[in-house]
Amino acid sequence: GPSNSEGAGKVSLLKKVPALKDGDFTLAECTAILLYLSRKYNTPDHWYPSDIQKRARVDEYLSWHHANIRANAPKTMWIKVLIPLFTGQPLPSEKLQEVMEGLSTSLKQFEERFLQDKAFIIGREISLADLVAIVELMQPVGVGCDIFEDRPRLMEWRRRVEDAVGKELFFQAHEMILNIKELSNIQIDPQLKEHLAPVLMK
Amino acid sequence: GPSNSEGAGKVSLLKKVPALKDGDFTLAECTAILLYLSRKYNTPDHWYPSDIQKRARVDEYLSWHHANIRANAPKTMWIKVLIPLFTGQPLPSEKLQEVMEGLSTSLKQFEERFLQDKAFIIGREISLADLVAIVELMQPVGVGCDIFEDRPRLMEWRRRVEDAVGKELFFQAHEMILNIKELSNIQIDPQLKEHLAPVLMK
Repeated sequence: GPSNSEGAGKVSLLKKVPALKDGDFTLAECTAILLYLSRKYNTPDHWYPSDIQKRARVDEYLSWHHANIRANAPKTMWIKVLIPLFTGQPLPSEKLQEVMEGLSTSLKQFEERFLQDKAFIIGREISLADLVAIVELMQPVGVGCDIFEDRPRLMEWRRRVEDAVGKELFFQAHEMILNIKELSNIQIDPQLKEHLAPVLMK
Repeated sequence: GPSNSEGAGKVSLLKKVPALKDGDFTLAECTAILLYLSRKYNTPDHWYPSDIQKRARVDEYLSWHHANIRANAPKTMWIKVLIPLFTGQPLPSEKLQEVMEGLSTSLKQFEERFLQDKAFIIGREISLADLVAIVELMQPVGVGCDIFEDRPRLMEWRRRVEDAVGKELFFQAHEMILNIKELSNIQIDPQLKEHLAPVLMK
């Protein structure tokens, strides 16, 4: 199945995104870029609080995120959109179920361990941790797996993040992922398909 | 096989390590703990440089680390020590080969993308990025997979990290992992084995 590290490998074949270029300085990795921008532009304190315990809570989430939310949520996109697009056939539904179960476990931990009864991950204010989380969690939504539907606590948190970011900016930021299914209409060169299919099905 | 998220799930069953307790404040996640300690004790600048580009390089590595080195290196311990200990039988060698191949890909990227021709990950001085990397990379060594043997550039980097940390402290820190094979002599309660074996073999 498309494990996280395989997925990452594939994405980097297509030139790894996101990437930042600031003069001669280039930087990869979403969290590193957000931290860099928050320092460079001296953004409001709540994004990455100067209070060392609150800041540690952001770091704690960012670290946990990788092997959990980031390792699971993007798999839905591989299974529902990218693999069918390149192989011409849908993956068996057990595969999707397996991915959804892994994601479910991570979401349970996200709610119980990080969100708890707070408005945002670190407490009353939005931080980089919420941003990093929401961006990944909109991927399953974009491919038709609405993980917020049966999770009222998660849904309320999402609404608060939308309000804090501003609804317009929020939907602008997620426009591509929310329209990702349009990718399915792209014509892929048959020869490219032939080359990629065995790699993707591994 | 023991994917990273499953592995993490298992470890947290046994109460997640590492964890920090500072008065009422508790914190999980190795990288978050190191960052917290560096701030609280105002450690020398090279560990997490105040220069924002160098600091971004540390963050970039720490972010990449999770889905690559951290996702692969500890699997060697599951396969060579923990699973055989709890199930009473070694895993098929294809499984180990698969894990070693995944780790190999990550090590190649580590050398080419992060280490390059520098003394340490961010340049001339040791940082938290090197610490986080070396601790994970000593796990395969501890279970008998010497990943440094055929990688002179990686080996030279390890020697520089050892020197910078101090050889005595370095081996003290890795004593447990370097003696992990002694775990194999522990007697596991047969009932516990019966319960855990099917979970671990999944």
